[in-house]
Amino acid sequence: MAAPERFAVGIDIGGTNVKAGLVSGALAVAARADRPTEEAKGAAQLLGKIADLTKELASAAPSGSVVAGVGIGSPGFVDASLGVVSDCPGKIPGWTGTAVTEEVSSAAGLPAFLENDAKVIALGEGWAGAAKGASDYVSVTLGTGVGGGIVQGGEILQGASGTAAALGHICVDPDGPTCICGARGCLEVYVSTRAIGACAVDYIMRGVETTVLDHVEGGDLGDVDARAVFEAAAAGDAVACEVVGRTAKYLAAGLVTIAHVLDPEVIVIGGGVTKAGDLLLVPVREMATRLIWRKPGAPPVRIEFSQLGDDAGVFGGAALAFGKTSGR
Amino acid sequence: MAAPERFAVGIDIGGTNVKAGLVSGALAVAARADRPTEEAKGAAQLLGKIADLTKELASAAPSGSVVAGVGIGSPGFVDASLGVVSDCPGKIPGWTGTAVTEEVSSAAGLPAFLENDAKVIALGEGWAGAAKGASDYVSVTLGTGVGGGIVQGGEILQGASGTAAALGHICVDPDGPTCICGARGCLEVYVSTRAIGACAVDYIMRGVETTVLDHVEGGDLGDVDARAVFEAAAAGDAVACEVVGRTAKYLAAGLVTIAHVLDPEVIVIGGGVTKAGDLLLVPVREMATRLIWRKPGAPPVRIEFSQLGDDAGVFGGAALAFGKTSGR
Repeated sequence: MAAPERFAVGIDIGGTNVKAGLVSGALAVAARADRPTEEAKGAAQLLGKIADLTKELASAAPSGSVVAGVGIGSPGFVDASLGVVSDCPGKIPGWTGTAVTEEVSSAAGLPAFLENDAKVIALGEGWAGAAKGASDYVSVTLGTGVGGGIVQGGEILQGASGTAAALGHICVDPDGPTCICGARGCLEVYVSTRAIGACAVDYIMRGVETTVLDHVEGGDLGDVDARAVFEAAAAGDAVACEVVGRTAKYLAAGLVTIAHVLDPEVIVIGGGVTKAGDLLLVPVREMATRLIWRKPGAPPVRIEFSQLGDDAGVFGGAALAFGKTSGR
Repeated sequence: MAAPERFAVGIDIGGTNVKAGLVSGALAVAARADRPTEEAKGAAQLLGKIADLTKELASAAPSGSVVAGVGIGSPGFVDASLGVVSDCPGKIPGWTGTAVTEEVSSAAGLPAFLENDAKVIALGEGWAGAAKGASDYVSVTLGTGVGGGIVQGGEILQGASGTAAALGHICVDPDGPTCICGARGCLEVYVSTRAIGACAVDYIMRGVETTVLDHVEGGDLGDVDARAVFEAAAAGDAVACEVVGRTAKYLAAGLVTIAHVLDPEVIVIGGGVTKAGDLLLVPVREMATRLIWRKPGAPPVRIEFSQLGDDAGVFGGAALAFGKTSGR
């Protein structure tokens, strides 16, 4: 008799939606579901939604199969060994201190695991994505902010207080613009979707001619986002191309630093900024590969955009539940 | 009967001298010896000197004591598991490929261990220096170049090809001066002793009034070094103070990046640049501590100058021979 097919539930708590997927050990998503996050409504309703999603998806597993557990990626800091959110400032009232795994496990009757969302994405990339097979790799997520996960020797690198891989706060220019963290010239102030939109707005405010606003529905300056910049750049707009070029330069600088400090096999870039596609990937890869120093005979550090896209967190949650800590 | 006292030989292959020490398990240096490195004379003579130093110091151990082995720090890349120098470009003819531990062990009759010199210094700082007791820490060595060692969870972080911790090539300004590695704005082009001297020479060449040359024996422009800059700054010279200030700013930026990527308990700074003392340490510590973001309740990352000074490599070699990989 063949061993029963194994599944795990992966849950990704995003700013807008809680996304869940039932993922097989063979990397297939067998079922999906989501709920609005409604951060402002607080911890109890969010816990309830996570438990409901877990039960709903677990019950969708084929009869005779085994559901190994549920893995959850949360914003903020997580004490993974306790399954507790140790600090999640300002986002979800009451979330800090919530014993997520205990509550979800007891409500859904399945083993539950919790980790920081950016680290969960790193696990997803190692198990099912562009870092598959690698035991030393880095995942960088470029969204409204910039997060990261580092895997070394097959294990998530946590650091002394669990805050390692704050890759958005790599300093790429000590005289640069001030970051929300208080430092200057953090990677995040150049390469987040927020920074890319703001940089285009700067040009427009200074009266430089550009078609960026033509790519914004309603044409409102307050609605300029990274997507509009990428669209304008793809259509050949000079200002948008300059903004993308600036993004590429600083992103490459950050990747060079990551590569020299950590010597990974691959760096996977995910998040909204990857929607720029080859417009950004091609120059970033060219610059970073040229500038990353390698010992003679060592293969180049691979620079990849995520292929999992919005599913990286769901795959990562499932990987966490399966006890995977890397692509090995 | 008390257990016999234990010793280990630590050997530090420097550009000028091969330094050796017989170090007790209680962190006392019981005997010292050195030989000129004479790099140009090649691998065989260097191996002979290392074996001779090992035998000489092992025989100096008190009767009834035990010598656990010899630990050797070598420039270049090292395959620590094989005890072989895997790549040491240009420095010591024939050194690449040398099976150092096999040769020394057979000549001296002791277990021998080999590791890259900057990583050995990190071990020394963890065992006997400013990172004592820490299991997550970083050592940065600011000499003519800039090297580093990262210890995470009590183990040296090696990376995929053994070149992790190339901390001199953290990018602190993608538009900065070109580094010997080919990239721009590497930490090394701002904070190495070579960079500090060169920066002062730049001012002098531009005709800016400064007393830096008064601190150079013979007053020759070609002999301006970091030491002269530090002396002039201590005496209040404005140009020298500006050079030290620039060094502090970029060094702090590098430490902020290291702290955000790795989340260590302590960063230990060693090498010739630490001869600047509080003139450099005070502003660097102030800036880095202010700019390093910490999760609420986490202690600040300690920023320390090495107290082991030129002995860091000897202590590190002994730590390697004792099988210590961190201060735990």
